[in-house]
Amino acid sequence: MEKNVEVCLLLDFYGQLLTKRQQEVVELYFNNDLSLAEIADEFGITRQGVHDNIKRAEKTLYDLENRLGILERFRKHKRRLNEALIHIKNIEEIKNGSCEETVGEIKIIKEILKSIVDD
Amino acid sequence: MEKNVEVCLLLDFYGQLLTKRQQEVVELYFNNDLSLAEIADEFGITRQGVHDNIKRAEKTLYDLENRLGILERFRKHKRRLNEALIHIKNIEEIKNGSCEETVGEIKIIKEILKSIVDD
Repeated sequence: MEKNVEVCLLLDFYGQLLTKRQQEVVELYFNNDLSLAEIADEFGITRQGVHDNIKRAEKTLYDLENRLGILERFRKHKRRLNEALIHIKNIEEIKNGSCEETVGEIKIIKEILKSIVDD
Repeated sequence: MEKNVEVCLLLDFYGQLLTKRQQEVVELYFNNDLSLAEIADEFGITRQGVHDNIKRAEKTLYDLENRLGILERFRKHKRRLNEALIHIKNIEEIKNGSCEETVGEIKIIKEILKSIVDD
């Protein structure tokens, strides 16, 4: 069973909709990096029980994202913001005294920010 | 029963977690601005039935936001982006040839965008 980054991101958004036990198990597995055996020990359940809890939690998280798409929406915004940061870097690299190039970059940054605010 | 903007925003994020009937009723009520009586007519149910559906849907939406806080997270980002847009406006109003003030504004915008990307 792979510990993937996607699940950590999904947990950040939707974790509160998991059962209490799923939250505890998944937290220990993905965020505290415990093994299945260690978690089984912690809760006095079988390794298979922990495995099933994690699988069910993952399924719930992916189902939620399929229906709501909130992680993807956040990601899209972050991609756009990173583009804006590149244009800021461009401005920083423009030599002092040359404002004309800056104007063009500022226009692009403004459009990016507006597109996110209006989303 | 007030038609409030908050519910429309919550619907945008969490609507897909409502029952099919709740989604239909709430959509007609909040987004298409139909009256309870008109919706009751549409579905062949009582006005009270429509009212109950909407109340339950609203409760679900507010409960989800209380647990997940995603709308508030988006709002916080949008407030920050609007701040950044004010600083862009400041830059646009700086007279040509004066790049020094621009540098300060760019620095602020960069910090704002980074704080959102890192959130």
